[in-house]
Amino acid sequence: MHKNIIEIAKNSKLASLKTANLTSTQKNFALKLIAENLDKNRGIIKEENQKDISKAKKDGISDSIIDRLTLSDKVITSMIKGVNDVINLPDPIGEVTKMWRRPNGLVVGRKRIPIGVICMIFESRPNVVVDAGILCLKSGNTALLRGGKEAFNSNNILAKIMQEALDKAGVVKEAIQVFPTTEREAIHQILKLDQYIDLVIPRGKEGLIKTVVQNSTIPVIKHYKGVCHIFVDKKYGDYKQASDIILNSKAQRPGVCNALETLLIHEAIAQKFLPKIVEDFKKADVEVRGCDKCVNILNNIKSATEDDWATEYLDKIISIKIVKDIDEAISHIQRYGSDHTESIITSDYNNSMKFIDEVNSSAVFVNASTRFNDGGELGLGAEIGISTTKLHAFGPMGLEELTTTKFIIFGNGQIRN
Amino acid sequence: MHKNIIEIAKNSKLASLKTANLTSTQKNFALKLIAENLDKNRGIIKEENQKDISKAKKDGISDSIIDRLTLSDKVITSMIKGVNDVINLPDPIGEVTKMWRRPNGLVVGRKRIPIGVICMIFESRPNVVVDAGILCLKSGNTALLRGGKEAFNSNNILAKIMQEALDKAGVVKEAIQVFPTTEREAIHQILKLDQYIDLVIPRGKEGLIKTVVQNSTIPVIKHYKGVCHIFVDKKYGDYKQASDIILNSKAQRPGVCNALETLLIHEAIAQKFLPKIVEDFKKADVEVRGCDKCVNILNNIKSATEDDWATEYLDKIISIKIVKDIDEAISHIQRYGSDHTESIITSDYNNSMKFIDEVNSSAVFVNASTRFNDGGELGLGAEIGISTTKLHAFGPMGLEELTTTKFIIFGNGQIRN
Repeated sequence: MHKNIIEIAKNSKLASLKTANLTSTQKNFALKLIAENLDKNRGIIKEENQKDISKAKKDGISDSIIDRLTLSDKVITSMIKGVNDVINLPDPIGEVTKMWRRPNGLVVGRKRIPIGVICMIFESRPNVVVDAGILCLKSGNTALLRGGKEAFNSNNILAKIMQEALDKAGVVKEAIQVFPTTEREAIHQILKLDQYIDLVIPRGKEGLIKTVVQNSTIPVIKHYKGVCHIFVDKKYGDYKQASDIILNSKAQRPGVCNALETLLIHEAIAQKFLPKIVEDFKKADVEVRGCDKCVNILNNIKSATEDDWATEYLDKIISIKIVKDIDEAISHIQRYGSDHTESIITSDYNNSMKFIDEVNSSAVFVNASTRFNDGGELGLGAEIGISTTKLHAFGPMGLEELTTTKFIIFGNGQIRN
Repeated sequence: MHKNIIEIAKNSKLASLKTANLTSTQKNFALKLIAENLDKNRGIIKEENQKDISKAKKDGISDSIIDRLTLSDKVITSMIKGVNDVINLPDPIGEVTKMWRRPNGLVVGRKRIPIGVICMIFESRPNVVVDAGILCLKSGNTALLRGGKEAFNSNNILAKIMQEALDKAGVVKEAIQVFPTTEREAIHQILKLDQYIDLVIPRGKEGLIKTVVQNSTIPVIKHYKGVCHIFVDKKYGDYKQASDIILNSKAQRPGVCNALETLLIHEAIAQKFLPKIVEDFKKADVEVRGCDKCVNILNNIKSATEDDWATEYLDKIISIKIVKDIDEAISHIQRYGSDHTESIITSDYNNSMKFIDEVNSSAVFVNASTRFNDGGELGLGAEIGISTTKLHAFGPMGLEELTTTKFIIFGNGQIRN
């Protein structure tokens, strides 16, 4: 095993014992210095970033990836804004979420503590280094970051700038570290270090996430795909409101995990609803793939295959299925969905409640766009991503989701009978 | 792969879609029939159990394991009482733990839902089949159980009796299933079924837990060892109270995970405190292994080795170390502890708070016995065990810890800008 990797993980564990007990004042001061240091070092950030971009261009990497890779002044400004936003979020550590008294006089509480060492394994976007680093710091954890090789220089300079600020703030600089290797084998080594690392969060393509799940002895919280659904009920209310929600869910930003992928339409309204919504999709430049019943109604649309129902297009494509009733809609979601985000458009009270009760995805909406499944939009503040793992945190993960609780018990001599 | 194993797991997943939506009335009715059916079938339970015991005796299995294996009338009565206790616990499912309004009018809440399919992998005690089965059922999950081969017949008959009751109550009987194989290879197959199983909880010896952690692609909550500590501070108050807590922690039931394993004593009081407590340990038939400083004070005690500090004796043995101050005590716990249970005996306000703050074990006590780290004792009701995994549930796991939350969002046409 690469000796450096073990050393780095071990140092993170040791640092986590210190970051766990930092006061909010200390953490916010360190964050302020991080924001300042990022601002002061725009030049060198862009310089190092340019090395990655040049290499990517030489390697023939796609424009969309180069776009994600690029640290422009605008991106740097938004990273700095992100740091300042996190300063303004409440510190979750130390909160006693509940406290009660036992018959024998023991006073029992649950107190929020950091998880410990959090390792993020991610692709392309170097700003994840800053986002994850500051969220972990504010929640008293340490961050171990492993980005893609195409962002190697960018990731390293961002970590270095943050470490300088930590050092100046009197915070152990190993609180935020980037693994200094991009070999693929390194991931396998990292994933076995369960004595030092408490949690791994993989973000990226299916292959990356599978590699992590299959090889990790450390607990993993997956940030996996979103095959998101909207069901248009028999009584759906106003067409304008329904189509606004559907188009916003699909087309406002098609490349993200909470974008709509499959539209389910109640058969009682399909004859009228389908042609109108397909027309609207055409105007929005969205390709439609329909079930057999859809194709019977409109013979100018493409047929959906079995694969379509399970596909996260992340593109201006939508599959549409006509269903018998809400039960068939829910069954379809349970069979093909990814537990991410679903919404019902209805004016029927019973069906709104049935959908909320029986669909157990990370976020279940009534009469609103799926695009709101996001930490900021739901009011959690900044988020580290959206978990599709049911354990620990299901849905958007903000600061609170980066903590756990311990029991604290105050006694005066109690012993057990 | 053993085809049956996949079928069983798949059936559990399908059943979990139904158990998630059972009402409390339905679940409690099923539990009532389970209690009645266990009572009615005492004869056949003991008969099947006898087969396991005879085989175990023939195989030369140790008396203590045979003792754990035995389903006497007393054990059956206590299982039935357990079922009735769970009926009386509140149903965690459906609780909305928080609800708030966003500036755009969206009303956002977190609602408790079951985790889904929970697989317990355990050793010897067949009553785990009933305990885990009923806790999973009450929390809307399904239970997949994999016990030790020495309890094969006992586990199967208990599952069969529970399934009969489920069937009679109109609850899908696949809600509680025992894997019908005890081959070691089966565990490896089970641990790869992440498309069907949501959580694995291993309970048993170190080897079993390691096997599960190293091979599972399913999230694991470990119920691992407890190397529990008590620190006796310089100002410890009353000797009688201190020694009562220490002896209760060590000797009331030495074979359990929340029993005391290492006693840390402040050096300022060691000269007086050590001889008295060692005398009390002798009376309680507890073997003492001391650090060098201890041996200097009392030359008639055994020397502790480096290994002793990390050992869970589960026996009437204790290691004792004299430390400079509370900081050295906390460092020792961080280095050798297992994040399970620690207690401080002190009359000093600042040190009690420092210990509560800086020791991040699953339960941290002031002036009380470590033996209280238990779901029932802390007021959670029945427990499925004590988690030493920091993710999802850290410490005793009751019904609430067998659930997760989804976001529910009520809108009236909101779309994202």
